[in-house]
Amino acid sequence: MNKLKAIFHIIETERWQRTLNNVNNFIKDSGQDNVIIEVVANGAAVAAFFRNHCSLEENKPTGAASCGIEKADLVGEMKRLSQMGVGFTACRNALKMHDLDEKSLPGFVSVVPAGITEIIKKQTEGYAYYKA
Amino acid sequence: MNKLKAIFHIIETERWQRTLNNVNNFIKDSGQDNVIIEVVANGAAVAAFFRNHCSLEENKPTGAASCGIEKADLVGEMKRLSQMGVGFTACRNALKMHDLDEKSLPGFVSVVPAGITEIIKKQTEGYAYYKA
Amino acid sequence: MNKLKAIFHIIETERWQRTLNNVNNFIKDSGQDNVIIEVVANGAAVAAFFRNHCSLEENKPTGAASCGIEKADLVGEMKRLSQMGVGFTACRNALKMHDLDEKSLPGFVSVVPAGITEIIKKQTEGYAYYKA
Repeated sequence: MNKLKAIFHIIETERWQRTLNNVNNFIKDSGQDNVIIEVVANGAAVAAFFRNHCSLEENKPTGAASCGIEKADLVGEMKRLSQMGVGFTACRNALKMHDLDEKSLPGFVSVVPAGITEIIKKQTEGYAYYKA
Repeated sequence: MNKLKAIFHIIETERWQRTLNNVNNFIKDSGQDNVIIEVVANGAAVAAFFRNHCSLEENKPTGAASCGIEKADLVGEMKRLSQMGVGFTACRNALKMHDLDEKSLPGFVSVVPAGITEIIKKQTEGYAYYKA
Repeated sequence: MNKLKAIFHIIETERWQRTLNNVNNFIKDSGQDNVIIEVVANGAAVAAFFRNHCSLEENKPTGAASCGIEKADLVGEMKRLSQMGVGFTACRNALKMHDLDEKSLPGFVSVVPAGITEIIKKQTEGYAYYKA
């Protein structure tokens, strides 16, 4: 059987938890060996890759501490998924727009010049598209 | 002519009316005999399949009565579309997460273990994807 | 090399700026000669094609003047992109639903009977899909 290839596209920070749930459900349902998954983040969603950064724009946290903890949980879950083969990709344009330093990204996150190109190219390579 | 095959993906409850409008417009514009349509709901959107359930999370109804009526209209419209051949599919993960009993689903709604897998598989079978 | 073909789908008015940024980034990253882009607007997003119309539904502007100026900037940017070959398409159903006169559309905007059909048909012709 051919593997099921999918791009998960996330723009809004507050949809990360739901997106990671979707990835988990997809793996459980289809089997880890039968899927190829890449999560591509652009827009404000790239902020979630940084443990100590809060996206003021969309998350509006009331305190930096609670924000940091919440992010840490997300990053921990992403890391766990990356060890199962899930790719995580950040858009450089989005990182720049949100003043985020790509050198501080977790090691499991890849950077592409433009998330939009990645999303479109992968579809021409047979990936399905899922908008979180 | 090959039929146009499309997956309509809905996550947010408040987008149901718009989604059903889109389905209607697609059928009117392309002809009922020329389309194959499946509406896949995951996330909170699965709540709309239940006449007497309100999604507190996203709809925030002020009273159970008005909520019930509103849902009834949506379900009635879905039923009408299902009789025209439109498929409606609920994600079991989402039903469980929202404490909804799939035995109470209307008869025209199918259940899949994971909506995400359905959405991705169908694209590999030539379905176009439309995010509501 | 085959050109990368993409449909950008926009429903919500407030996502226009982000969408036009995405289009610009895609062109810069892939090269103007290597892409074929069509931006399809349905729902409230069609209002942004009209310089002097405000979408009360989603934008909730506090004054007509500020709204008009903001729209003018978006339309100017769309026009610039259209001169680079980007297609802009409005859904007639959406125009009617929002009481917008298609005769007042800027010359670079095409109208289709149903945006949904355009979005689905183009995918069957090899276009990738990007939901703004």
